[in-house]
Amino acid sequence: MWKIIIILMASLVPVALLAWQAAAQIDPLPSWTEGDAKKSVMQFVGRVTKKGSPDFVPPMERIAVFDNDGTLWAEQPVYFQGQFVMDRVHALAPQYPDWKEKQPYKAVLENDLKALAASGQKGLLELVMATHAGMTTEEFDRIVKDWLATARHPKFKRPYADLVYQPMLELLAFLRANDFRTFIASGGGVEFLRAFCDARYGIPPEQVIGSSIVTRYEVHDGRPALVREPKLDFIDDGEGKPVGINKFIGRRPIAAFGNSDGDFQMLEWVTAGTGPRFGLIVHHDDAVREFAYDRASAVGKLDRGLAEAPKRGWTVVSMTSDWKRIFPFENN
Amino acid sequence: MWKIIIILMASLVPVALLAWQAAAQIDPLPSWTEGDAKKSVMQFVGRVTKKGSPDFVPPMERIAVFDNDGTLWAEQPVYFQGQFVMDRVHALAPQYPDWKEKQPYKAVLENDLKALAASGQKGLLELVMATHAGMTTEEFDRIVKDWLATARHPKFKRPYADLVYQPMLELLAFLRANDFRTFIASGGGVEFLRAFCDARYGIPPEQVIGSSIVTRYEVHDGRPALVREPKLDFIDDGEGKPVGINKFIGRRPIAAFGNSDGDFQMLEWVTAGTGPRFGLIVHHDDAVREFAYDRASAVGKLDRGLAEAPKRGWTVVSMTSDWKRIFPFENN
Repeated sequence: MWKIIIILMASLVPVALLAWQAAAQIDPLPSWTEGDAKKSVMQFVGRVTKKGSPDFVPPMERIAVFDNDGTLWAEQPVYFQGQFVMDRVHALAPQYPDWKEKQPYKAVLENDLKALAASGQKGLLELVMATHAGMTTEEFDRIVKDWLATARHPKFKRPYADLVYQPMLELLAFLRANDFRTFIASGGGVEFLRAFCDARYGIPPEQVIGSSIVTRYEVHDGRPALVREPKLDFIDDGEGKPVGINKFIGRRPIAAFGNSDGDFQMLEWVTAGTGPRFGLIVHHDDAVREFAYDRASAVGKLDRGLAEAPKRGWTVVSMTSDWKRIFPFENN
Repeated sequence: MWKIIIILMASLVPVALLAWQAAAQIDPLPSWTEGDAKKSVMQFVGRVTKKGSPDFVPPMERIAVFDNDGTLWAEQPVYFQGQFVMDRVHALAPQYPDWKEKQPYKAVLENDLKALAASGQKGLLELVMATHAGMTTEEFDRIVKDWLATARHPKFKRPYADLVYQPMLELLAFLRANDFRTFIASGGGVEFLRAFCDARYGIPPEQVIGSSIVTRYEVHDGRPALVREPKLDFIDDGEGKPVGINKFIGRRPIAAFGNSDGDFQMLEWVTAGTGPRFGLIVHHDDAVREFAYDRASAVGKLDRGLAEAPKRGWTVVSMTSDWKRIFPFENN
């Protein structure tokens, strides 16, 4: 009897071993080509998760921050939230007949990008407030979700939330499988982001940091609500990113992922901490499959980051050569 | 042979069953007396965690928010952070000889509480800025930790961080064992709180929401730092609590725990959501073991909350009758 049991058990060992080896060999980043960028990510995760290693980082401190526009999803020809603003101006125009003759609304309604640019930051801010304030947080969430369900990107003719980068989705999943918590630190509006980040990236609302406007607590007929006010609260861009990350997370992440100079200070702050650190910049150099832009771009300008990445030890990803596939909808 | 195996296995069944029953019967809230308050907590947790029940709440949405002062630790005779401010004024005074003749510093240095009160909110704000700003976030963290290690509470002659409520520690652990995530939403300073909340409550920095001052990103000799500025950023109290919770968490918690009218709007907003909701107020009515105060107290005033708790379905905890033990250091 014991013999039979031993034989049975012995026969199971190679099966278990094979299954274990197969699991170990499943590539967590199949859309990344074999090269320095992929290697740098794999090696960093290997170092910080290896127990007993001097570079081991406890799971609670494995925090990674990601920019959104141009890092997790596309941002050309205009930031998607900018397109949302313009679409909302068109949708709201019937309620505001005076917009036809009033800048900066007139510029949007006539698709006059020159006049729009001439309205400057003040004009853009006015458009943001006209489209982002004056409703409850729950109403705004519904407006964003409706827009995401109906609007289409001009080049790809698809919903904007389709234009997320497949290699970055794999990277997020790979980090989380290694007990990292993944946060977004975006210049975009925090409540705009929260409308899709959970469904699209698996990043829950409490792990999303972004720019914000002021909200006010109000109670009507015993029903409380948070009402969005036309007043800036915080701009989570450039030097604002480390400030926002510290405010929300309260500790320095060990890895940061960005694509433009708006991410420079976040990368700088994260990678200046003690212990193992990782910084990565996505370089948009693929005009065929996506868009090619960097130093001179109005949207997602990447100049200083590209110049300083080598000496700072940051990984630069070439979308052309490091990514086999860019969007989830592409044929593999 | 099979017979032996069957007998062996059968003999294990009662052992396993006993172990399972014992585990099921371990009281998660041993410092709570058997009564309505304890029952209400246990029943709420039972309802939202029972799979298939109409009140089941998925783990990701099981978010509970806790006030800190008077809810998780004591707050008399003055808010502990207020004592920190006064102790810092004394510690810094040798560097500022003019404080001896300058209000509101003079009042603190002479322990003249009347003159201090006369300096009003403006005076208190000046003291906060003088003691909380002008250093990096890392330096401030060290200052708070040093103070917590050395300062002693006037009544209990113990470090302030000893004065946490044992029943609330058990409640935090019980909620987390049931896949809740526990957050703090305090009127206290967020970076003051973060210096001890992880060690004391098991609440990590990214789950702490509080009042804040502005920080500025600075780079000196290639080393980046966040410098604390003498400028208010956000007051997380009263109507600010739902605003702060929405800003940081981005969704409405399902349970809220407070003790003063500064928690009223948080409790109101949390318990007004759809689905199962829970609100609890700690009532300080134990002058012997702690302090007794409510409607007329300058610190931790509880008036409206006490009046409206019954009709709003909030549980009111009597520290005298609902808690067997108040502090972890008490003999059981």
